[in-house]
Amino acid sequence: MVKKHNFSAGPCILPQEVFQKSAEAILNFNNLGLSLLEISHRSKDFVAVMDEARSIVKRLLNLGDEYEVLYLQGGASLQFLMVPFNFLKLNGKAAYLDTGTWSSNAIKEAKKLGNVDVVASSKDENYSFIPKDFKVDSACDYFHCTSNNTIYGTQIKTFPNVETLMVCDMSSDIFSRVIDFSQFDLIYAGAQKNMGPAGTTLVVVKKEILGKTGRDIPSMLDYSLHIAKESMFNTPPVFAVYASLLTLQHLEKNGGIAAAEKVNNQKASLLYDEIDRNPLFETFCKKEDRSNMNAAFKLKDESKKEEFDSAWKAAGINGLNGHRSLGGYRASMYNALPLESVQVLVDVMKNFK
Amino acid sequence: MVKKHNFSAGPCILPQEVFQKSAEAILNFNNLGLSLLEISHRSKDFVAVMDEARSIVKRLLNLGDEYEVLYLQGGASLQFLMVPFNFLKLNGKAAYLDTGTWSSNAIKEAKKLGNVDVVASSKDENYSFIPKDFKVDSACDYFHCTSNNTIYGTQIKTFPNVETLMVCDMSSDIFSRVIDFSQFDLIYAGAQKNMGPAGTTLVVVKKEILGKTGRDIPSMLDYSLHIAKESMFNTPPVFAVYASLLTLQHLEKNGGIAAAEKVNNQKASLLYDEIDRNPLFETFCKKEDRSNMNAAFKLKDESKKEEFDSAWKAAGINGLNGHRSLGGYRASMYNALPLESVQVLVDVMKNFK
Repeated sequence: MVKKHNFSAGPCILPQEVFQKSAEAILNFNNLGLSLLEISHRSKDFVAVMDEARSIVKRLLNLGDEYEVLYLQGGASLQFLMVPFNFLKLNGKAAYLDTGTWSSNAIKEAKKLGNVDVVASSKDENYSFIPKDFKVDSACDYFHCTSNNTIYGTQIKTFPNVETLMVCDMSSDIFSRVIDFSQFDLIYAGAQKNMGPAGTTLVVVKKEILGKTGRDIPSMLDYSLHIAKESMFNTPPVFAVYASLLTLQHLEKNGGIAAAEKVNNQKASLLYDEIDRNPLFETFCKKEDRSNMNAAFKLKDESKKEEFDSAWKAAGINGLNGHRSLGGYRASMYNALPLESVQVLVDVMKNFK
Repeated sequence: MVKKHNFSAGPCILPQEVFQKSAEAILNFNNLGLSLLEISHRSKDFVAVMDEARSIVKRLLNLGDEYEVLYLQGGASLQFLMVPFNFLKLNGKAAYLDTGTWSSNAIKEAKKLGNVDVVASSKDENYSFIPKDFKVDSACDYFHCTSNNTIYGTQIKTFPNVETLMVCDMSSDIFSRVIDFSQFDLIYAGAQKNMGPAGTTLVVVKKEILGKTGRDIPSMLDYSLHIAKESMFNTPPVFAVYASLLTLQHLEKNGGIAAAEKVNNQKASLLYDEIDRNPLFETFCKKEDRSNMNAAFKLKDESKKEEFDSAWKAAGINGLNGHRSLGGYRASMYNALPLESVQVLVDVMKNFK
């Protein structure tokens, strides 16, 4: 079988070691003679997994004890609801930056709970850039942004200085680049890109900002309660948490975020240089806002599509089709994608006439 | 290594075949040369998994096209919130039967959304029985009950006739006994007992009852939206859904619920007969309400605890400690637990002086 080069946008490629070790744990976990899937989440073996899975995130993001880490369920989409429940005061107002489909979905859910001020949007230009000139009213309860837009292939390079709390959906680029994570009061991310399989959602939150909205928050939507229960208010998604821990351990022992960023920059340069050099291709978005995680691009001449599709498939490339809302192609180059896979794609593009 | 007899209350034992096949899928799914964890949930291979996982539930429960099946996240605890959001009308009233910790938690969440009528409760007698003489006001929007109480070891044997919608939390005994599932309008169940690993929640709902509360339901809490998106409104918990499908396929090919019930009855009789015969032990609950899934029992003389604990541990028994809120022991005898394991426990009890 041809080796697969997996550019899937998520769920996506993870380190091979994660597949190996998680498969082993399903057959016999920690040499207990039991599967990871059949042990109690209150057993000391799993409690140790959860504790380390929470600790390693703070080490990797270089965050101190003022932050708490949770592994929840429901994906970023449930966070779209939890964020306003926990931070949007009754009669308060929240500021949102609209940079794509996921930002827009987050705005929609927040509006069900209160007033939302969309500070800027690139929707009218099909989300082809990141708006930069905007003001956030300091009276807002928080400012929400999406660090990376998987569908449109854009990424916030510099985060704004705001006088409110700052909340960021980092689902598709967390752990991919060194930034000052302490500028955020809440970070959330569906695991299924750089940190693990689908089925759990990371939440990193500054404790001191909780409990100030005056809302009676439903238990499952209340960050404070999840923190008090050490991320085990109810049965956690055991397998997804364990596989996420394996993924983060792999990252840590290979040099952490700084080392991953270096390779991510190489992969992105390699591909974007070819897109810029090759007269057959172009990106959807402005050059300065290009994502290092997801390169969304297209053929200038759509009639060559069938031929190009055959070429990359023959090279063992998987998951290159663009999102159904945009079309074209999308090369997702998450942490676990080897530089070699990007080289294979670039070679296909070079050789394509 | 001694063979383990796993009486864990959940996550719990699953068929060995499920461990084998799910571990294989993590290494190479459907012979694609890719892990189950790295493929898109929109790929045809995973869409086929989700479709079959939804269909098999209706076949096993003998339900028709008027029902829809969803695999959600968040456990039964999130259903405690989704149920009132979807069925408790503005200014309406819901009826709840309080038979244990989980019923009580469901009541607590519903009260945050509206009026709740607790029709009966055994709380004052430490949930040692299932209340049977109660009336449900037909003006209520729905009646909610918990079919099996893992902590207290009780189980509803006959469901009441009510003139309202009937909603049931079947987390700990779904797929374990033949009942007329069509008497329910909504059934939900955390997967981590009889149907799979932790990380997904089954919802079976009669379509016609949806959309009648007048509430603006947050997207992630709206059953109608999840149905419209065929249980993929956002990225589903891929691994948990696949392992649940394997578990249900194992059940179906081994004779379905009727065959499982037969063995479950044998296991329960074997253990309860020993508890009744043996002067050292007693159950916490009334005989008529004993659960066939979770036998909660204790030593009459607590001073023998250390000795008994050593005896069952030496026999390779795992997960026999009672829930922290009740103490004593709890033998959880879910579908995948072999009769042989119960025999081992009974032998330990017989030989214990």
